[in-house]
Amino acid sequence: MANTTCKFCEFSAKDENLIFETPFWMVLLAPEQSYVGRSMVVLKRHAASLSDVTAEELADFGSVVKKFEAAAKKAFDATMFNWTCMMNDFFRAAIPDPHVHWHARPRYNHTVEVSHVRFTDPEFGQHYNRDRTQEIPGNVRKEIVAKLRKAA
Amino acid sequence: MANTTCKFCEFSAKDENLIFETPFWMVLLAPEQSYVGRSMVVLKRHAASLSDVTAEELADFGSVVKKFEAAAKKAFDATMFNWTCMMNDFFRAAIPDPHVHWHARPRYNHTVEVSHVRFTDPEFGQHYNRDRTQEIPGNVRKEIVAKLRKAA
Repeated sequence: MANTTCKFCEFSAKDENLIFETPFWMVLLAPEQSYVGRSMVVLKRHAASLSDVTAEELADFGSVVKKFEAAAKKAFDATMFNWTCMMNDFFRAAIPDPHVHWHARPRYNHTVEVSHVRFTDPEFGQHYNRDRTQEIPGNVRKEIVAKLRKAA
Repeated sequence: MANTTCKFCEFSAKDENLIFETPFWMVLLAPEQSYVGRSMVVLKRHAASLSDVTAEELADFGSVVKKFEAAAKKAFDATMFNWTCMMNDFFRAAIPDPHVHWHARPRYNHTVEVSHVRFTDPEFGQHYNRDRTQEIPGNVRKEIVAKLRKAA
């Protein structure tokens, strides 16, 4: 199932960014946190496109959506969510070998504070802004993961 | 089921932009065609978020994905796809009342020509570019819809 050169195949449930896992997916806090709680939902098998996701895997993704949205609402009072399945980066390779994953961006009509770091969503009601990025210290990352794990 | 003030509730299978429909979703060519074949997948019931989509509706969405991707590959040799469920615009209202829909953007590692209009994807391998828009005459729109309908 795994592809030895695929970084998405390397994610493990032991990853410090893991929020929760289901039979077919892993939910991990994304590196970039301009929208606090931004996460990746990674299929636990190397599959190339959404068309290749099985009925069973898609049904399980439905459970992930419900659980993640409920957790981000409970933890940070997230207002709504942007879900995307893109996989563009893989296609810069000479021989693209994509691995299905989703990006979940909670969006906020209010400011959120985690360990004294303020997170705002100045583009709320608009498309997310990829030019605005937010670096966070390791302790804040751990706190975000902990809050989402507890709420999930 | 329908909300009388929701423009997404007003879409009908008789819409000239309809590509195909399934028990729970309608697939319509989007107004903006910078990525040729760009379409909207609209739930046939007024539901507020992806968490509200039922297991049956999500399973049917899986069939939509397979059918749409296969059609865009057959009609225009689409290379891969970006799928997004955003719904940001609804949240500019004082009382947001969103309606679940998806945006499907076929992406291309080559130029496509439809009725002598050339469509390029200069951002292939990167995030889609919302600043680049492509106006198309009515006859080209009809041709794109016809090609996708035939291939679906």
